[in-house]
Amino acid sequence: MNKIGKYEFIAEPFHCDFSGRMFLGHLGNQMLNAADFHSTDRGFGMKYLMTIKRSWVLSRLAIEMEEMPAQYAHFTIETWVESAMKFFTSRNFCVSDGQGKVYGYGRSIWAMIDTETRQPCDIYAIDNGAINDWIVDDKPCPIEKGGRVKMSGNDELVRSLEVNYNDIDINGHVNSVKYIEHVLDLWDIAWYREHRLKRFEIAYVAEAHQGDKMDFYREQIADNEFCVRLTKTDLSSQKETEVCRCRLVF
Amino acid sequence: MNKIGKYEFIAEPFHCDFSGRMFLGHLGNQMLNAADFHSTDRGFGMKYLMTIKRSWVLSRLAIEMEEMPAQYAHFTIETWVESAMKFFTSRNFCVSDGQGKVYGYGRSIWAMIDTETRQPCDIYAIDNGAINDWIVDDKPCPIEKGGRVKMSGNDELVRSLEVNYNDIDINGHVNSVKYIEHVLDLWDIAWYREHRLKRFEIAYVAEAHQGDKMDFYREQIADNEFCVRLTKTDLSSQKETEVCRCRLVF
Repeated sequence: MNKIGKYEFIAEPFHCDFSGRMFLGHLGNQMLNAADFHSTDRGFGMKYLMTIKRSWVLSRLAIEMEEMPAQYAHFTIETWVESAMKFFTSRNFCVSDGQGKVYGYGRSIWAMIDTETRQPCDIYAIDNGAINDWIVDDKPCPIEKGGRVKMSGNDELVRSLEVNYNDIDINGHVNSVKYIEHVLDLWDIAWYREHRLKRFEIAYVAEAHQGDKMDFYREQIADNEFCVRLTKTDLSSQKETEVCRCRLVF
Repeated sequence: MNKIGKYEFIAEPFHCDFSGRMFLGHLGNQMLNAADFHSTDRGFGMKYLMTIKRSWVLSRLAIEMEEMPAQYAHFTIETWVESAMKFFTSRNFCVSDGQGKVYGYGRSIWAMIDTETRQPCDIYAIDNGAINDWIVDDKPCPIEKGGRVKMSGNDELVRSLEVNYNDIDINGHVNSVKYIEHVLDLWDIAWYREHRLKRFEIAYVAEAHQGDKMDFYREQIADNEFCVRLTKTDLSSQKETEVCRCRLVF
């Protein structure tokens, strides 16, 4: 089996924004689907991991797009494992039209956890380090790695939202893509008419659950460059905890 | 070409709720995709209509499910035109596993409008009444038609939301499926743990846009049966207008 997985998608009309281009959230969702198909086909997918009480947890995701697929466009996501360490693997994505035109790239970092203790586990312990058989270290992914999202402390609370039914997936916490959508919703259509999102990066820290309040703190760090820090507050304990940080470059 | 269109889908993991069953919003979206594929393949789809300044507008949708497809399930949506009148067509859906097990059904009513005047147009004027060639009046769709959603006036304002970037589709107004998601979000996970949604129906009246405030008014009309009225308020004029009404049976 090829080390690189290649999957076809279509930019569904209702997954496109006012401009007729795909929403980044839906593209991110298709990247996660591609990752799931790729790992399942190669014996280290979620379904198998569940049987041994392990799970992949997305730790970081960075997406950098030259252009977004337009309504009804067929597009291809290639994905591969670039490297693996004891507790993390790095998985890359290339989004193209399947005929040579590249729309953009993605980079992601995943941890493996024990689903009972929620503690990180040794990835090499799975099937005698089989992950090493799938590493592709010579396929380019010419976008910057996601780093720490540094904020100066001059961020401003710009929105508070309750966690709702549609935010929560089978893991019982807010779905990774929903945070992206909520963060992108901090800007309005008038802004998106004038600014194209070039790069989005998110680092996940903790998980928000039903009953939590989510607070979005935003800071502009350069021309057309913003950071957003998202916290959750448990309504009974009133304890505020950081959930994720994002960096957006328009 | 068969009068009934048949399309295959998969219940993607991130389109499933906490219980591992598909969200109704995503299922509704796939029904709308099936409708789009079916009409496009038969010469009366959105793409063609755009060229003659016409568009389909969803007027009502009712979905009644015995069971929701589970995570990773392959499922089939069959769709067909049950009847056509001058200004409306009625399109039905059957959701099954493709092997005889039916998950549920849908019924929808569509109007055709002139995209410049936004006025209703004569459906029979398209291609000399070609829609008549596609009518299937002998395939059963054993669920109640959607009727007027009657409310007593004892409804209560339960939530207010701004319209955000991710709500708006290429038509420039809130996407039909987003209203469904916002309405379902009025109940929390604790409720959904105890109650399965059996029937959802929605009648669209007007369209909400960026900058509108959406108010959700809810009334319980019977045991496990609720109506929701959604209005929009333009923030400059402060005029409140009804956008849609829903009826939910758990």
